[in-house]
Amino acid sequence: MSANARINATRLWQSLMDMAKIGATAKGGVHRIAFSDEDRQARDLFRSWCDEAGYTVRVDKFGNMFARRPGRDPDLPAVLVGSHLDSQPTGGKFDGAYGVLSALEVLRSLDDMGQETLRPVEVVNWTNEEGAIFKPMIGSEVFTGALPLDKAYAMPDPQGRTLEEDLRAIGYAGDMELNPDPLHCYFEVHIEQGPILEREAAPIGIVSAGAGIRWYTLTLTGFDSHAGPTPMDVRRDALVGAAEVVLEVRKIALAQGEDGRGTVGCLTPYPASPNVIPGRVELTIDFRHASDEALTAMHEALGTAVAEIARRHDLSADLQQTVHSPRIPFHPTLQGMIRDAAKELGYAHRDLVSGAGHDAFHLAKVIPTALMFIPCENGVSHNESENITQEDSEAGGNVLLQAVLRAANDPAPLKMPA
Amino acid sequence: MSANARINATRLWQSLMDMAKIGATAKGGVHRIAFSDEDRQARDLFRSWCDEAGYTVRVDKFGNMFARRPGRDPDLPAVLVGSHLDSQPTGGKFDGAYGVLSALEVLRSLDDMGQETLRPVEVVNWTNEEGAIFKPMIGSEVFTGALPLDKAYAMPDPQGRTLEEDLRAIGYAGDMELNPDPLHCYFEVHIEQGPILEREAAPIGIVSAGAGIRWYTLTLTGFDSHAGPTPMDVRRDALVGAAEVVLEVRKIALAQGEDGRGTVGCLTPYPASPNVIPGRVELTIDFRHASDEALTAMHEALGTAVAEIARRHDLSADLQQTVHSPRIPFHPTLQGMIRDAAKELGYAHRDLVSGAGHDAFHLAKVIPTALMFIPCENGVSHNESENITQEDSEAGGNVLLQAVLRAANDPAPLKMPA
Repeated sequence: MSANARINATRLWQSLMDMAKIGATAKGGVHRIAFSDEDRQARDLFRSWCDEAGYTVRVDKFGNMFARRPGRDPDLPAVLVGSHLDSQPTGGKFDGAYGVLSALEVLRSLDDMGQETLRPVEVVNWTNEEGAIFKPMIGSEVFTGALPLDKAYAMPDPQGRTLEEDLRAIGYAGDMELNPDPLHCYFEVHIEQGPILEREAAPIGIVSAGAGIRWYTLTLTGFDSHAGPTPMDVRRDALVGAAEVVLEVRKIALAQGEDGRGTVGCLTPYPASPNVIPGRVELTIDFRHASDEALTAMHEALGTAVAEIARRHDLSADLQQTVHSPRIPFHPTLQGMIRDAAKELGYAHRDLVSGAGHDAFHLAKVIPTALMFIPCENGVSHNESENITQEDSEAGGNVLLQAVLRAANDPAPLKMPA
Repeated sequence: MSANARINATRLWQSLMDMAKIGATAKGGVHRIAFSDEDRQARDLFRSWCDEAGYTVRVDKFGNMFARRPGRDPDLPAVLVGSHLDSQPTGGKFDGAYGVLSALEVLRSLDDMGQETLRPVEVVNWTNEEGAIFKPMIGSEVFTGALPLDKAYAMPDPQGRTLEEDLRAIGYAGDMELNPDPLHCYFEVHIEQGPILEREAAPIGIVSAGAGIRWYTLTLTGFDSHAGPTPMDVRRDALVGAAEVVLEVRKIALAQGEDGRGTVGCLTPYPASPNVIPGRVELTIDFRHASDEALTAMHEALGTAVAEIARRHDLSADLQQTVHSPRIPFHPTLQGMIRDAAKELGYAHRDLVSGAGHDAFHLAKVIPTALMFIPCENGVSHNESENITQEDSEAGGNVLLQAVLRAANDPAPLKMPA
């Protein structure tokens, strides 16, 4: 009977559209920043749906919300499924919300079918995934213990209030302890935020790993002088050096195959006057790769390139690595459950790497975790025009339902990978 | 007797040092922005020196100051010599001040030697050359009629006052009409603000022309997307395109020989977040060349390069020319007087082009004009560390004295070049 289980795709879509009314923007997106009144409304709506269905809702001390559907064996650790309901300042309707509402749809469908599971299944809505306030993924980081609660409470919002005050103001500083009960595993479904699945017409992406990330700041210093009287051959133009770095960052990423990413997002020349040769440029570099070895190779290539560019243009270079987060592998057994479900349901699927960070990255460090993607239109996300098809929404929900059933009906505990 | 005339180099240096006390900064430069109290003090000191020497000081309606030493024939048009006493916010001791005070030293030396000239000689201090307030060279532009006085009066300073109010506040809105009497010619001596004379150990630079200038703004628009999930081959990264433009601007200038200049001074990516591929970049381009033909070739090469770069990275490009000022030739007869003086005095000299703008550029459009340079240390200017040697200061003063004597003792009028 489990093999025939399907979600109610119409209800899932309707829930997505109803949720998208909260913080709806004129351009079809949502403005639902963490700790805002829109965030509160979204939480309230989610809770009302859980209450209606009879799922017990608990809120932990950092506002993470858990809605539980009991299992036959109340002593077995639960399967956790979810994502987040907060958005970027001008975000889309599906980033995060799709993960929470497809998880809710899994529970509702199980109810419709009168289907019990061995383990409890819980839907989670993580607090402040987007990081519009202070930094991203604070809720899941606090939950896993990587970030102490008191530090998270003390973080300031742009108005100078603490996040603890913000949580109290919207009524979501709960009384549940952080991560009180053992959990069996965590599933998260998310829109891809990239173009790969759409390009390959595959509705299901099985994320093998979160890309390793290295961030840098680079300051190049030459000498600012007058654009008119200074001959080209004696210039120490920091912006010419920076331009070569921008192109080199791209070249280094391309050299490491389809999983390499290299981006200069910020670049500021000084003194920034049309007729003054920039004597200093500050820029950021973001490198990502699915392989830690490849990421190390990119790191080394950057150091060499920057030194060579600085030497050639008579600049001094201060290159600082500010972030180094190694590759995060997801659980092979859970990946297999998603793959088997996609196969049985006849959905095209492929393995891929997550270049963007997700709550699942934090969870993967403490419990067996899987991350699954569905396509988004043109790979566009963090944008009001973000879109998905109803067909892909249905495919993702059905695969999630099947994968959750596999996990929730398996009495054997999962081991963390070595 | 004229051939033996020399300035008092010690007095000139002392005047430079005395003037440099006004607005002196801790790092050895000056802060003497136009219309400021420091500007007023500098003007007062200059006037007191002129009063002591008995030169009649007049101030015109835009604050330009004229100190006149009579000639034997009061009906002959005067020789005008000078520059400016205002500075950049963190400027040097010699930019402008050297031109005004070497002109004053010429008059004082003529007095010392009891030497009359046929024509009157007037020293001028132009208002707001640096453009720290609103825009550069307003005083000389108003004087020549290129900028109507009422427009200049109405220009706002950063505090929202008009320049007319600013002039009144420092007591330098004079009653002399603008440019009331015919003038024979204009000489300006300035520090080079570039490294050429120092490199060639030539204390005297004879400026053949002011470089033609073209300024542009360029906006490149791609699509901002997430640095993690977006593969390199589908990006529309406006900063990668902009980096190629920066390098192309340099290449285009280098292709036009030693007089070519190409500079990107301002460059701003949007949205400027370390993990977002910039979807838009705005930048400025400054092209200069001594030859209008070469400048046209640079203009055309830029258009071609921008279109090609935009096409290759799937960007749209909006390239706007914001300034086009053709080459400004200086008067060959006056250049010859400077060259002859340098030769007779035994100073190494060379012809060169002025990449930077000077008051002489405006004057050259209405009366026969010459511009002369002396070296500055490492080519550094608009900087508190700006420096010159006493030796070069003396050489410049002596050549100016000799050139002024030649012009002031020649009864024949000069014709404007065709």
